[in-house]
Amino acid sequence: MQVVVPFAATSPKTRLEGVLSSEERSTIARAMLADVLGALEATDRECEPTVVSTAPLSLSSALAFDSDSDSDSGSPAADIDDVTVEVDDRPLTDAVNARLESVGDGSDAVAVVMADLALATPAALERLFEPDADVVVAPGRGGGTNALVVRHPEFRVDYHGASYLDHREIAAGIGATLEPVDSHRLATDIDEPADLVEVLVHRSGGSTRACLCEFGFELETSDGRVTVARD
Amino acid sequence: MQVVVPFAATSPKTRLEGVLSSEERSTIARAMLADVLGALEATDRECEPTVVSTAPLSLSSALAFDSDSDSDSGSPAADIDDVTVEVDDRPLTDAVNARLESVGDGSDAVAVVMADLALATPAALERLFEPDADVVVAPGRGGGTNALVVRHPEFRVDYHGASYLDHREIAAGIGATLEPVDSHRLATDIDEPADLVEVLVHRSGGSTRACLCEFGFELETSDGRVTVARD
Repeated sequence: MQVVVPFAATSPKTRLEGVLSSEERSTIARAMLADVLGALEATDRECEPTVVSTAPLSLSSALAFDSDSDSDSGSPAADIDDVTVEVDDRPLTDAVNARLESVGDGSDAVAVVMADLALATPAALERLFEPDADVVVAPGRGGGTNALVVRHPEFRVDYHGASYLDHREIAAGIGATLEPVDSHRLATDIDEPADLVEVLVHRSGGSTRACLCEFGFELETSDGRVTVARD
Repeated sequence: MQVVVPFAATSPKTRLEGVLSSEERSTIARAMLADVLGALEATDRECEPTVVSTAPLSLSSALAFDSDSDSDSGSPAADIDDVTVEVDDRPLTDAVNARLESVGDGSDAVAVVMADLALATPAALERLFEPDADVVVAPGRGGGTNALVVRHPEFRVDYHGASYLDHREIAAGIGATLEPVDSHRLATDIDEPADLVEVLVHRSGGSTRACLCEFGFELETSDGRVTVARD
């Protein structure tokens, strides 16, 4: 399956600026991309990932993190040779829609998986790929769309606002069947400091966790609520 | 299956105090309970729910909300006659552990489902009930434990802190198999204003949504991020 992985290469993850420097945000964004590509590669099906980056990107440095994975949340290091990088500086919606044009035009299906799904596992991605619907959507927390599979040639995305609801409407409008995927792992995009808790709780390996540990983050539960603290 | 539904009857949902009055918080807590009980009743298996309430509770008033459900996110109104209420003012961990004693002592399994899982659907709960593991856990966002099924007589809960990780350790310590359930619906307990977005996005019917609409809440997407606004 063709899989588009949009990646914001410049000034990524601004909502983490309270806890991470600009350089660290750039590093962790690449670590998350490495984990997503690793999880895609470890699924049972033949994935052909294309990273659609807003700026030139060296995959060899992005994927340099050691991925000490286990069976529970494993994403083995991705093989760079299987990954294509395309630079496209258009807004996300336009860049994705350009790739959806290939559906029906040679491709049976195109998947779009966000690069910040640091909790994604092969099993969670299989649940995205499996349903035989025209459109399969993994909603993100907050009404977004974190991952989808498009098998209908007329379906186009619109990532602005509550895109999950918009994508339901767009599918209904063209008579396309839509199936949601109920996954906490795919619903969790790493945008804010509270999201880092999810990485430390739900990943026992992977580049993103390794990166957070290297930066000195650990879980903090002293006041009864779970947060991250940095030494 | 025996299902324990712990319910904080007095001063519930204090983290919603910025957007809801004390009386409204009490009303919405009961609406969420009604949705959870309705979803349990609509699963394929014979559920015997016991609401373990910190104070006396009138189920007939708690379940009075009109549940205008649909097939996608439906939780038909629960039948009060099938639900038992027990008052237990001990801390959550103690109240739940007292009920887990029945595992191996007559019961094959006891499930514990939090009363604030307003997104729970019959399908999501089936995924909790289905795995044949000694302990099945649906983690909550932030490291908590939102729902579990216990089939091992020695397993006991500890809800303090990052309880999902603690429950994994407790299971490992007694040689019990543990299977996590990857569900956004079960991971989403309604604690904070941002969680109300999830109700309005993912429920098209149900008591909790009806309650929020009655209070004048709607989705607000004008600044690109999705929040709730109150008229």
